[in-house]
Amino acid sequence: QCNLTGSWENDLGSKMHVFKVDSEGNFSGEYHTAVSSTTKPIQPSPLVGSQHLDKDGQCTFGFTVNWKKFSDSTAVFVGQCFTGDNGDEVLKTSWLLREKVDSLPSDWKATR
Amino acid sequence: QCNLTGSWENDLGSKMHVFKVDSEGNFSGEYHTAVSSTTKPIQPSPLVGSQHLDKDGQCTFGFTVNWKKFSDSTAVFVGQCFTGDNGDEVLKTSWLLREKVDSLPSDWKATR
Amino acid sequence: QCNLTGSWENDLGSKMHVFKVDSEGNFSGEYHTAVSSTTKPIQPSPLVGSQHLDKDGQCTFGFTVNWKKFSDSTAVFVGQCFTGDNGDEVLKTSWLLREKVDSLPSDWKATR
Amino acid sequence: QCNLTGSWENDLGSKMHVFKVDSEGNFSGEYHTAVSSTTKPIQPSPLVGSQHLDKDGQCTFGFTVNWKKFSDSTAVFVGQCFTGDNGDEVLKTSWLLREKVDSLPSDWKATR
Repeated sequence: QCNLTGSWENDLGSKMHVFKVDSEGNFSGEYHTAVSSTTKPIQPSPLVGSQHLDKDGQCTFGFTVNWKKFSDSTAVFVGQCFTGDNGDEVLKTSWLLREKVDSLPSDWKATR
Repeated sequence: QCNLTGSWENDLGSKMHVFKVDSEGNFSGEYHTAVSSTTKPIQPSPLVGSQHLDKDGQCTFGFTVNWKKFSDSTAVFVGQCFTGDNGDEVLKTSWLLREKVDSLPSDWKATR
Repeated sequence: QCNLTGSWENDLGSKMHVFKVDSEGNFSGEYHTAVSSTTKPIQPSPLVGSQHLDKDGQCTFGFTVNWKKFSDSTAVFVGQCFTGDNGDEVLKTSWLLREKVDSLPSDWKATR
Repeated sequence: QCNLTGSWENDLGSKMHVFKVDSEGNFSGEYHTAVSSTTKPIQPSPLVGSQHLDKDGQCTFGFTVNWKKFSDSTAVFVGQCFTGDNGDEVLKTSWLLREKVDSLPSDWKATR
């Protein structure tokens, strides 16, 4: 089964801790990013999200990271659980990072 | 100030209801999508997310929609609040939709 | 039929001139962007691309804009032609902008 | 220096052959994709693109692949050349795949 509860690390060295997933699939947690586009010191940042609870252990999920402790940006991640050949669970995700811009004409460049 | 609490509608006719935003910026709500890539009947779907609470009313935010009531997909949205010339609040967002795929080799095409 | 030859303008005020589309669907042209993430003066920039030549006038296409005249970035656009209710041709596109970064560890943030 | 001329292979097993890059940075070539979202047999597909010609060998580039031989889709890739620790050149790219949809209301889901 796929349950996000626990600790995860990605290729860039960012770490994620997901606290208990509730019966609706909702969860909260903490994201320690290894990379940042700001110059302020990185701090562990709160996340909230939701996952499917499919029995086949290949559920999709999504979550939001609020970087408020050192930035006015927000990131979202969406992905799916897979079980690798060696039995290890692997998360494949895509993300968007929204930076705050000062007005609508700059909106086009706010997301990477 | 930017507070997502309330009802929003996008250009495609999708509607979003955000319940109370708490003091941390976390919120839940319901998303009624007007469009779907599945053939099952669309149903209102739960969302959870987080927003900044900047005083200038131009905060960034993100949220996850779990389509479990009619699909095994998950969507994430990230964006920013703006106040238009007429005083109306406008949300500009980008999104990713993750479809469930059956194995890792299909991961490349799972996100749109 | 959908033929990109001619002049196009988008919602941001950027203008595109596509020179003759050849029998393979290849074309070149010039892109005058209205927005930029650099501080150098914007200059008309060369583009090269390719389109399908479907008879139904709803072809997909893609092109690359090389911003070398004022930037070390590159953009790509991909989209489709549609004929609106009033008979006007409309192009719907998505784009990616690649900025040059100084090393691989910064690759994660290079594309918006 | 970074010159795309030659053969490249990605993690999915797709192969790309870039013919001569001209003095403007324009090039054409052929893309043999290892993956496809259609059911028709995959065929080598023409590509056209453009690269910067920076002396530092870390240029950005972009190109369009026209899948007309087996599909009505178009893909665009944008990326940057890097030289790895072992001296090998590595291309880091992002891509968008545009599928043809039958009308504007389906435009939202056409790009992945």
